[in-house]
Amino acid sequence: MKDEQKKAVILVSGGLDSATTLAIAQEAGFDCYAISFSYGQRHVAELQAADRVVKALGAALHKTVSIDMSIIGGSALTDMGIDVPDYPTEGIPVTYVPARNTVFLSMALAWAEVLHAQDIFIGVNAVDYSGYPDCRPEYISAFEKMANLATRAAVEGEKIQIHAPLIDMTKADIINKGVSLGVDYSQTVSCYSADSQGRACGHCDSCRLRRQGFNDAAVSDPTIYV
Amino acid sequence: MKDEQKKAVILVSGGLDSATTLAIAQEAGFDCYAISFSYGQRHVAELQAADRVVKALGAALHKTVSIDMSIIGGSALTDMGIDVPDYPTEGIPVTYVPARNTVFLSMALAWAEVLHAQDIFIGVNAVDYSGYPDCRPEYISAFEKMANLATRAAVEGEKIQIHAPLIDMTKADIINKGVSLGVDYSQTVSCYSADSQGRACGHCDSCRLRRQGFNDAAVSDPTIYV
Repeated sequence: MKDEQKKAVILVSGGLDSATTLAIAQEAGFDCYAISFSYGQRHVAELQAADRVVKALGAALHKTVSIDMSIIGGSALTDMGIDVPDYPTEGIPVTYVPARNTVFLSMALAWAEVLHAQDIFIGVNAVDYSGYPDCRPEYISAFEKMANLATRAAVEGEKIQIHAPLIDMTKADIINKGVSLGVDYSQTVSCYSADSQGRACGHCDSCRLRRQGFNDAAVSDPTIYV
Repeated sequence: MKDEQKKAVILVSGGLDSATTLAIAQEAGFDCYAISFSYGQRHVAELQAADRVVKALGAALHKTVSIDMSIIGGSALTDMGIDVPDYPTEGIPVTYVPARNTVFLSMALAWAEVLHAQDIFIGVNAVDYSGYPDCRPEYISAFEKMANLATRAAVEGEKIQIHAPLIDMTKADIINKGVSLGVDYSQTVSCYSADSQGRACGHCDSCRLRRQGFNDAAVSDPTIYV
């Protein structure tokens, strides 16, 4: 019954990973509250994809929060003066956005407190990923500890759990899981340089990981490339 | 010499505590980068006060970041449907903004990474305060631990330190410290219900703590009340 369902806040970017995460939270029986961010990213196609994903998979509510991270810059995704590389680079790439998951999880924590939700889902992955530090298990664990000291709700007993169900999965595993849950990946956009219609460049780090994932999963790649 | 100074990011709200914190960071020799937030707060006089404070005390740069926390609500400070109480209340009051310091510190962390700053100053206080959970030492310590796993800079050796120099001080101690550093408190606004000219109500929790502080410090209260 609806009123017995536990609420959860799900970070939904419009990409493959967060769509799968939303489907996993639904399968686990949570009443899902989806949150997306307009943070000055260059690929607005992301937010349109987030809308499509949430409409298709369903959620009790979907909010898009505006945070002007471009005022801070420091990333190819938020600073038009830094190009997105179309080839693999050494180390953590310039598409890394400073403290992005920390900012996003903080807003999710704020909403969770208002909703009396104790569960937050984020689709980070530390296997087939770009090496971003805020995708690692030790980071997620430290955020959860901090969150449980940060809010009135947590202090009063509504303990917060940060779920990162994809963290140990390969991209192929994620795709197979999503397909089994009915996720339509043609609705998602992963490309760092997607055009206004959501078509992917096929060359950036995110495109390469995604394409390889479909290949490894032996699932036909529904991505539309330019 | 300027180019030998360490950079620090300072959270400046326009209130008494953060003005004192900026003065303390200046005194400690940091090259100060001030950050303020337009987060849907009802008291816009705060941001005008933040501008005055930073101009008077000086900073290398001052950025005001827009974050729409009113879309989430849950506080008398961001939800016009919840009144600010003009009398003391039991427990953590309705002026508590869900996860506010976590969201603000996260953005400060993002900017610190871009600046290659390793020091962040926040004017939280756990003595003469409203009982907000995100003002306690154990919270600040947990945030620092998380921050050091969150960013590329920290992972690559630029460790982050969160400074909360007021955390154990009484309001009177804070005022005396600020006066000794030349802080002009007439420029600051602490009131939760300040009018558009920054005049204080004199009754809310924040006004009571501030007024008592000037009284205990035996410093003339420069606050303009309505």
